Amino acid sequence: MTAQAAPRRGRPGYDRAEVLRIAVELFNQQGYDATSVADLAQRLGLSKSALYHHFDSKEQLLSLALDDALNGLEAALESALAQEGTVADTLTGLIRGAILVLTEQQPQVTLLLRLRGNSPVEIAALERRRNFDHRVIDLVRQAQAEGVLRSDIGAGIATRLVFGMVNSIAEWYRPAGSVAAEELSGDVIAIALEGLQPR
Amino acid sequence: MTAQAAPRRGRPGYDRAEVLRIAVELFNQQGYDATSVADLAQRLGLSKSALYHHFDSKEQLLSLALDDALNGLEAALESALAQEGTVADTLTGLIRGAILVLTEQQPQVTLLLRLRGNSPVEIAALERRRNFDHRVIDLVRQAQAEGVLRSDIGAGIATRLVFGMVNSIAEWYRPAGSVAAEELSGDVIAIALEGLQPR
Repeated sequence: MTAQAAPRRGRPGYDRAEVLRIAVELFNQQGYDATSVADLAQRLGLSKSALYHHFDSKEQLLSLALDDALNGLEAALESALAQEGTVADTLTGLIRGAILVLTEQQPQVTLLLRLRGNSPVEIAALERRRNFDHRVIDLVRQAQAEGVLRSDIGAGIATRLVFGMVNSIAEWYRPAGSVAAEELSGDVIAIALEGLQPR
Repeated sequence: MTAQAAPRRGRPGYDRAEVLRIAVELFNQQGYDATSVADLAQRLGLSKSALYHHFDSKEQLLSLALDDALNGLEAALESALAQEGTVADTLTGLIRGAILVLTEQQPQVTLLLRLRGNSPVEIAALERRRNFDHRVIDLVRQAQAEGVLRSDIGAGIATRLVFGMVNSIAEWYRPAGSVAAEELSGDVIAIALEGLQPR
């Protein structure tokens, strides 16, 4: 860290991970586009130069956070595909994995879900998300072809709606709350497969 | 409109509704917090003073747009409650009504769903949305008590997940697309009640 004359209220000894965590929190609170490097420096109680010691740019912080979320989701898909079992097992494994990523990396996933595509970093992340979606839609289509899932609802719409349930969890899940991620996964899978009517 | 020396490229004769429509479009594109009155004036090709002829403030535009969305959702709930029928009919009527509001007022609903609560207008809208949610949760709880819906999934979680499906439509629905709102409502209700497994 270079010597600075600028105010450094408290000046805590942040490491990169901590700076990233606080940046993502601020992006989610006031929007990425509305957050300046000066805002972030102020929140951290660091000078802008001290902040640039940790990161090159605001976009780099965004990019790292989106990578966290996308790497997690892609790993959940790979892991579900690597499991022994039917395509139905793959899909339920994927839902469980995605909800785990979402609850463990809620701030990064929230950022991903709110992207508008206003910069190259955002456009690249949206493209990765689109590829992920298409791989899942292909799985649902396969499950429909095998008769494991009903085929009167299009694979694209069914996938988007079920992931609508999954993603909505980012809006209201509280890590310290009364509902565990595992219980939530069970509920989402129950609704997605069986629905809410009593059997 | 007062006489202005400021540039007025094109200076189209906007009415209030048109100014509001374009403002909401811009808020959704770059975020409400990141959008200044100057940005909006530029997008409209109006001077700031000409814009203030239509509206008092950026917050007033936000407030009107959120009222559109919330009035629509609340009217859908009242209308579903006023229907003859079981609590299950009320709930399916509500889902149909909410999806209709969402597809007809997609920009306003999108704005509502992305609120962060950074201003009194936003906090008031979030409070109205919370009241709406609680009324729906009460309906789901009643349906569970009557045995119309399974009760092994909490009413709050079931409601939030089903509305997660509904709200996700705002992210990808295209008015000119191949899927009609009515078809989408049928798909959401089918998944919510019956699930994706073949019966």
